[in-house]
Parts: sequence; C-alpha cells; structure tokens
Amino acid sequence: MADSKQSKIAIIGTGLIGASVGLNLMARKDRKYEVVGIDRSRQNARTAKEMKAVDRTVRYLDEAVREASMIVLAVPARAAEELLRSMEPHVSPGAVITDTSSTKASFMATAQEVLGDGVSVIGGHPMAGSERSGPSAARIDLFQGAAWAVTPSPSAPEPSVRVVLGLIDAAGAVPIYVDPAEHDELVAAVSHVPLLLSVALFKLVRDSACWEDAEQLAGPGFRDMTRLTMGDPQMATDIVATNRPAVLSWLRRYQGELDTIIEALELSDEEAERLGEGVELADDGRDSAAKGADALIESLFSRAQLERFVFDDRIIGRQIKKEGEEAPRSGDVLGQMFMGAYLYGRLKEQLNRGEEREREAALRRGSRKQ
Amino acid sequence: MADSKQSKIAIIGTGLIGASVGLNLMARKDRKYEVVGIDRSRQNARTAKEMKAVDRTVRYLDEAVREASMIVLAVPARAAEELLRSMEPHVSPGAVITDTSSTKASFMATAQEVLGDGVSVIGGHPMAGSERSGPSAARIDLFQGAAWAVTPSPSAPEPSVRVVLGLIDAAGAVPIYVDPAEHDELVAAVSHVPLLLSVALFKLVRDSACWEDAEQLAGPGFRDMTRLTMGDPQMATDIVATNRPAVLSWLRRYQGELDTIIEALELSDEEAERLGEGVELADDGRDSAAKGADALIESLFSRAQLERFVFDDRIIGRQIKKEGEEAPRSGDVLGQMFMGAYLYGRLKEQLNRGEEREREAALRRGSRKQ
Repeated sequence: MADSKQSKIAIIGTGLIGASVGLNLMARKDRKYEVVGIDRSRQNARTAKEMKAVDRTVRYLDEAVREASMIVLAVPARAAEELLRSMEPHVSPGAVITDTSSTKASFMATAQEVLGDGVSVIGGHPMAGSERSGPSAARIDLFQGAAWAVTPSPSAPEPSVRVVLGLIDAAGAVPIYVDPAEHDELVAAVSHVPLLLSVALFKLVRDSACWEDAEQLAGPGFRDMTRLTMGDPQMATDIVATNRPAVLSWLRRYQGELDTIIEALELSDEEAERLGEGVELADDGRDSAAKGADALIESLFSRAQLERFVFDDRIIGRQIKKEGEEAPRSGDVLGQMFMGAYLYGRLKEQLNRGEEREREAALRRGSRKQ
Repeated sequence: MADSKQSKIAIIGTGLIGASVGLNLMARKDRKYEVVGIDRSRQNARTAKEMKAVDRTVRYLDEAVREASMIVLAVPARAAEELLRSMEPHVSPGAVITDTSSTKASFMATAQEVLGDGVSVIGGHPMAGSERSGPSAARIDLFQGAAWAVTPSPSAPEPSVRVVLGLIDAAGAVPIYVDPAEHDELVAAVSHVPLLLSVALFKLVRDSACWEDAEQLAGPGFRDMTRLTMGDPQMATDIVATNRPAVLSWLRRYQGELDTIIEALELSDEEAERLGEGVELADDGRDSAAKGADALIESLFSRAQLERFVFDDRIIGRQIKKEGEEAPRSGDVLGQMFMGAYLYGRLKEQLNRGEEREREAALRRGSRKQ
C-alpha cells in the first residue's frame, strides 16, 4: 500500500461518521489510495487506526491535507467551517473537499469565501447515525441504503462531483442532490426539530418530581422518543447555531400542531364532563359533539398510521433495492477512482423516482377529493 | 392437554399483546391449564391458534369466560371496560380477571362497579409493544425485562394477586405495583404524550408542502421519532379518551419546555444578527450574550445526553438481571399455578431497588449543589 504514486484521502475527524466512512473506503478491493486519519482526540485517531478505518494517522492538520486528492471533513458543522479556514493554505490545487456535517448553507458559503473556485467543494450529509458516538461505534453498514445529501458548489467540475458520488456509493448510500438552503430547511424538519423534541421530552420527564417512578414504567416508546438525546452534544449545538431560522420556524409550526391536538382533547373533555361523571360508553349514551371530538382524534391516529406505513414501505423498498444492486467496480486514481456510468444510471433512476412520486401525489390529491 | 380437571385461562383479544401473553403461557412446561382465545376478528383468533398462542379458540364471550380461573383482557382501554359489563353474568366466582390496557383508573372503577368484591380484578399494563399490531407480530420475548404495572383492587386476596404475578413472571417481565390514578399520571408522561408527540411530528412534516423532498432525506432519527404513529389507532383513541386530564396536563408542560428552547434559540439568533450577517466563529469575535445563549443550549444537550445515558444503563442493567434469573418452577392449578416464595423474593428485591434509587437521588442532589 505504501506506494508513492497512490492518491491520498484524508479523513478529518475519526468519530462515528468519519471512521464509518473510513471502514467503507478501506474495504474497497483494488483501491489505489491510502486513507489518512486525524482527530482532535488522539485516542479517537488511535482507535480508528486499530479498527482499520484508516491506513495511518497523523498529528497535524497540514500533514493530513497536504497532497490529499480528497478531504473528508467529518466533524460538527461549526468545526467544519473553522477547519476550512485552517487548512486553506495547505490544500492542493485540484483537491476535492467534502464534509458530512448536519447543515450545508453556512458551510458552502464559508467554503466559497475561503477557498474560492480553485478547490472543488462538494458538501455532503449522510442521513445516518447512531446514539453512540466515537470510532468504536462506527460500522461499515452505517450508511447502507441511507440518503446522502449532496450540495456541489456551482464551480465544482463534474469529475470532482463524481469522486464524491463514488464515496457515497462505496458507503452503500443513495445520493440526493439538493440546494444548500433547501437542505437546511428540509433537515430542520426531519432531523433537527426531532432532536429538539426528543431533548424536550426527556428533560420534561427527567426533571419532573415523579421521575423516579416514571422511569420504572418507561418502555420502548419512551426510549425511542428520547434516543436522539444521546447524540454528540457538540454536533447538536452546532446544528442549532448554523440553522436557527429554519429550526425556529419548524418548531413554531410544531407548537401549532400540538395546539390543535390540545384543543381537540379539551373539546372531547368538556363534552365528557357535560355527560356527567365518566363517559357513557354505549353508542346511544353519547351526544354527537362528544362523538365528533372523538372521531376527530381517531381520524388523526388512523390517518397518521396509514401514511406512516406507506412511508415505511417506501424506505424498506429503497433499502432492499440498494442491497440488490450490483456493486460498482473500482477504477483508478481520482476522477476514475470510482465509476461514472454507473452513477449516471443512479441519477436517472432518481429522476424516475421523482416522476413516480408525482404520480402518487396526484393519486393522493384525487383520493382526498372523493 | 384436554383434561377436564385442568384449569382454564381465557385470553380475550388475541392481537399483539394477547397472542404474546398466550405464547408465554403455552410455553410453560408442566402446565396444568388450557389457554382459550377469542377475538372480535376471527382471522386474529385463527392466527393465534395456528401460531400456538392458544390451545383453542371460541366464538362467543360467555363460552370463553365460563369456568375460566383466569381471564386476560388484551384489548384497548374502553373495549376492556365494555367487556367487563358483557362478561359479568358469565364469570365464575373466584375467577381472577386481569387486563393489559393502557390506562387503569377508569378500568378499575368500572370493575368495582360491575363486579363488586366477588371476583378478583388485578389490573395490569405491560410496558412493551411494537409498531406492528395483530397476532402475527406477537413474540414470546415481547415482555422480556419489561416493566408490567400491577393495580390490584383493594379487595383482591393475596393468592389472586399471586396468579397475576405468576403470569407476569412467565412472560419474563418485572411487576411494578402502582396506584391506578398514579399509573395513569405516570404513563401519560412516558407513553401517552410521547405517542401524541410522534403523531404531531409526522403530521407536521407529512402535511407540509415539502414532504416529497423531506421524505427523501428522512433518516433513522425521523423514523424513530415517528414510529409510535404506527400503533393501533383504536388503542390510541382509547388512551386519550380514558386519560384526558393527565395527558392534557403533561402536553401543556411539554409546550412549556418547547417555549424555553424557542426562547433560547431566539436569544441566540438575535445576538447572532447583532454581530452582523453571519456569526463570527472565532472565540474573540463573539460577544458574551451570544456565548451565553449558546452555552445554555450546549448545556441543555450535554446534560440531557448524560442523564439519558444513565437511564439507558439502568434499563440495560434491569434486562440483563432479568435474563440471568433462574426461572420459577411451575406448580399446580390456580393459587399454586405459579410459585409464591419466588415472587416474595422479587418484591423484596423491588423494595431494595427503591432504596438504591433513594441513595442515587441523594447523590445526585449532592452533586448539583457543588
């Protein structure tokens, strides 16, 4: 492997994500690159090396990035921006820089400001993770079937984009092209707000006077709903710091959803009280307003259940499809480092999927009208 | 098995929970009882029989409960109350009735009203489940290591309570004695509100204009946080109908938690704006108020992470302990159907655990003062 001709991929940050990326890069047969790792925590770097997530580790940033053909920043969002500034003097012309951090607009703006058009910056965000952090939690299948958002800078040439698509493909993930600002808006809804909701729920119950009893009764539902709380606090803080407006906007809309539910419960409760102590359960014992509030709540649950199952089936379908795909054959150094034609096929498929979604949406709109 | 001397256990409702209970009862070696199942859905009953979750199925309620020494109601909360009324004329004197539904106060009040003191009613609520419902989702290990709330009626004699403790033990769960009203207050926090939060999150994103893009990026966090949406809508509706005041109270407190987070984000956002377009990331470029808001958010995440890990370790500890325990030896019919001494040991252990929690709480209080 120690061949001076081979190209070098630098992984900056060998935690859960960086080490999982490394495991995938290292596992590729006939690879013509070496993988170099660096981490602020020397223990993390050592662990990544021991578990063969990197070929070797280095101690200083300039050492890591110098002559690297690809640099993967796998650190929290604000740290990624700081690193762009620090590494700038040492990055080779023509290098491809990508990252895995949770927000994209601020990172891409900083990249443009710091690096200009000389270096290709293709932002990335794998929609995968675990409640455990650090390289010891890394897994080669962490990204299998997962979406991986890709935000190329406008000036990034096609071959550089292909290098990052190759990385995503090597990890078994599905690339999703998205505008950086749109990315941040979307992940606020599906990732950042869920994280905050999870923290708020855990804090509410944990800080309540009855925690010691509640804890005894907490089952899998509570554990699922508070699991995101266990993620890296630095990552969470950086998410919030780099995506405040979108997070705030979705959080306020979420409060609106809760208001609607609370109102339905209050209505249902008032009606129940009007019927005297305890609700009469036989159909004929209930007046139509109470039935109305109940029906509202029942339809809320029924509709959510149905549509959540549809969503689940689509996710499972995506994963099965991904696993059934033929693996691309690895090529040579940068540019040909990963195959091109295969990826074009993938992009075409993504477009088809868009059309399919259009049709489904039209069907849904139709069925609502009935 | 078809021995006229053997006692009969009736499972009313052979869905996920009923069939999982049945699998555990059927798996006991040297059992001296037969397990009879009934379900509103004949398909569910058939499936339960096929998968050996019951010995046989019957079609009518009176057939199921007549001469049963134990009756297990495994149906949604309001249905359980309705069934108490319908089965009352057919229940044998001395029978033990238990249930598995999500709320306990209303059920226990109805039991007292309908059955009086002649029949032992010991309410139950296993803190376990799955997003899949129906007998085909049943598992013999569904309750392994799970908490199982127990609410005996004041008049229930000790031997009847022991029968239900035996059932819980056969299922591998840990009994937790709790007052019915307290139960409902506690599970509102750890189960019912989480369910509503999950539904609200899914509805928010699903009904938004950007769903078709958001869906593409939704990763494991979103899936975890919306998984409860997939539960049985009838069970969810009954939960809300039988526990409105507690659910409303916790939901309002939850909104308070969100308000606090929103305020911290707004403060942090205002400070960022005051520093001009884009936040300056270097330490010396930020004023102390912005740092203060950030520090608040970071400590929110750090503290939640730490305490959630403590909770996780305790849960895992409980499960490992349960698995390591020696299985009780089965005895004879009702009363001796399950062993007694073993269960006393368990109760003693539960008391010890209470003391342990006291010590831990004292330690925590101490460490906060520092």
